[in-house]
Amino acid sequence: MMSCDFLQLAQAGIQGLTPYQPGKPIDEVARELNLPLEQIVKLASNENPHGPSPQVVAALQASLAELPRYPDGSGYRLKAALAERLDLDPEQITLGNGSNELLDLIGRCWLTPGTNAVYSQYAFAVYPITTQAADAEHRQIPAKNWGHDLPAMAAAIDAQTRVVFIANPNNPTGTWLSEKQLREFMAQVPEQVLVVLDEAYCEYVTESAYPKSLALLADYPNLIICRTFSKAYGLAGLRIGYSLSSTQIAATLNRIRLPFNVSQLALTAAEAALADQDFLAQSLETNRAGLLQLETSFHELGLEYIPSVGNFICVRVGDAAAINQALLEKGVIVRPLAPYQMPEHLRISIGLPEENQRFLEALRQVLDQ
Amino acid sequence: MMSCDFLQLAQAGIQGLTPYQPGKPIDEVARELNLPLEQIVKLASNENPHGPSPQVVAALQASLAELPRYPDGSGYRLKAALAERLDLDPEQITLGNGSNELLDLIGRCWLTPGTNAVYSQYAFAVYPITTQAADAEHRQIPAKNWGHDLPAMAAAIDAQTRVVFIANPNNPTGTWLSEKQLREFMAQVPEQVLVVLDEAYCEYVTESAYPKSLALLADYPNLIICRTFSKAYGLAGLRIGYSLSSTQIAATLNRIRLPFNVSQLALTAAEAALADQDFLAQSLETNRAGLLQLETSFHELGLEYIPSVGNFICVRVGDAAAINQALLEKGVIVRPLAPYQMPEHLRISIGLPEENQRFLEALRQVLDQ
Repeated sequence: MMSCDFLQLAQAGIQGLTPYQPGKPIDEVARELNLPLEQIVKLASNENPHGPSPQVVAALQASLAELPRYPDGSGYRLKAALAERLDLDPEQITLGNGSNELLDLIGRCWLTPGTNAVYSQYAFAVYPITTQAADAEHRQIPAKNWGHDLPAMAAAIDAQTRVVFIANPNNPTGTWLSEKQLREFMAQVPEQVLVVLDEAYCEYVTESAYPKSLALLADYPNLIICRTFSKAYGLAGLRIGYSLSSTQIAATLNRIRLPFNVSQLALTAAEAALADQDFLAQSLETNRAGLLQLETSFHELGLEYIPSVGNFICVRVGDAAAINQALLEKGVIVRPLAPYQMPEHLRISIGLPEENQRFLEALRQVLDQ
Repeated sequence: MMSCDFLQLAQAGIQGLTPYQPGKPIDEVARELNLPLEQIVKLASNENPHGPSPQVVAALQASLAELPRYPDGSGYRLKAALAERLDLDPEQITLGNGSNELLDLIGRCWLTPGTNAVYSQYAFAVYPITTQAADAEHRQIPAKNWGHDLPAMAAAIDAQTRVVFIANPNNPTGTWLSEKQLREFMAQVPEQVLVVLDEAYCEYVTESAYPKSLALLADYPNLIICRTFSKAYGLAGLRIGYSLSSTQIAATLNRIRLPFNVSQLALTAAEAALADQDFLAQSLETNRAGLLQLETSFHELGLEYIPSVGNFICVRVGDAAAINQALLEKGVIVRPLAPYQMPEHLRISIGLPEENQRFLEALRQVLDQ
């Protein structure tokens, strides 16, 4: 029997969609290169290089007996803990299967054919994917110094604009926006346009001019802040993120959210991770030292890099595809940025000191060839 | 500052959406009733009453160190294990954050305003939610003997129909369709209409006339089978399900699937669960005995019930809301079916023998009052 073309039958947005290309898992690279797993260093997905917090491991072990039960779909305990820490109403919080899901839910709620979303060149790849999935119009605004050009983004907003995506710090470039810049931007945004402030990497930022975004939330009801437990809290494997917004926006997202979108183990782990601020502090310290280690070495190697406030750094190596392949063959996985139209750059996630060292040695060897 | 009405600004489907009402978590009931947790029996969400498989627990404990890593977004190992067990191509498999997400992804791909979805009265609540989220037209076909009226469903298909949802066994009523009935139906469905066969409870069915759906898949390229690890495999807390379809349909779903929609712990647990067929057999045996225990008691009590092949059973108790409240106050959580327009029925999940006994004692007391 001949089959129909179900791709052609799918809605228009899907047909134009190119899925996000994740970094390769370590065991896939090991399989492909026929290298032992323990010889591979992965600095490709902006993960926390420490193991998980021991408190998270203990909490998960204590909860494994509850696996057959559905999760608490309301996330009662985690929302209460977040609300207390952030001094917000729990009803301002929406939990997601990673912050990626929250970005996706926002697109599903407010982007439709005929509307548009504004985002920056070199910003997180999920913004164009979310826009495309909704079959909405893309307004990608050229970057300025690898970061967001907020005045140009404000100028691009029109009557059909529903959502503006801003990553702060930006992934993959590591650039950041100050509170002053962000407030000037928000003052220009019409009140019916949602501004999504993606703060996936906010915990790493030490700059004093970095926005206190919770205060902005009180001033701007059209603001949604998205955060994650995948990065500084080290829970990427469990998939949990959250958004902070007005209660009305949260209630709207809740209508379309799957009732059990976050697993019980993710809820349990996030609660334990939030309580272990010593682990967080240690992670941030490792990151600061690692960023310095890489910047210093890039400087010595004469390589141009983009100053970063995240847990990753972009370095210009020339033919990044070739350098990336040579690094891979030495068992070092980093992220080439051709999908971001940055064919000369690699993005390196900050690892433990010895992992950074392994990468730097491999890079020196590859550049010397 | 006055806030805009962001619910009004959301797409039309969202505005008409009433979120799925999950059963209450045990600790929420304990909080509300001020009862100790261990005195509560929950037979409300069709969960596996056994603890998790010890092999699953062992596999998870061994993998906790990998929490900070993103999951394998391709689900390579689990798909390989499923493909081998089911004798399919791994590329026919799509993994989801529970089978609920697969139903949602199907709606997002193929339902749009102006199209319609056909499903049965008393079928799983997620079908109307998925249809509504896409702002598509609902074609809810009156049930026959609490189950699907397939000839009437076939007659309801028109040029705008994109998706037919069929639950087999059906949740919440526990009814089932034979292979003969399903094949007669498929022969009438136009080839461009997708038929979603939701087999969330298929493992429990022992009837020999129950469809061998993988054979149907080979015959009908417009068929998608959805299954889950939440029920018989006991992993509801971890959120993982899968669909089986043509490779083209799977590739289309993959375009819109979030790259890391399934957590690494869910992948690991599902692989271990699939390997532990002894645990599955024990779960099915407990279920058979429990179904018999409840049916016998309902018979003795003179209560009408709907014969079920799942891990739950619907019983007609009269004023189900009142009976449910009285059971709750005795620490027994079951599912009243008013949201399914079955105000006289309760759905009872099959528990361990002593849990079923607790429920039956409470029910007798409540009915005697």
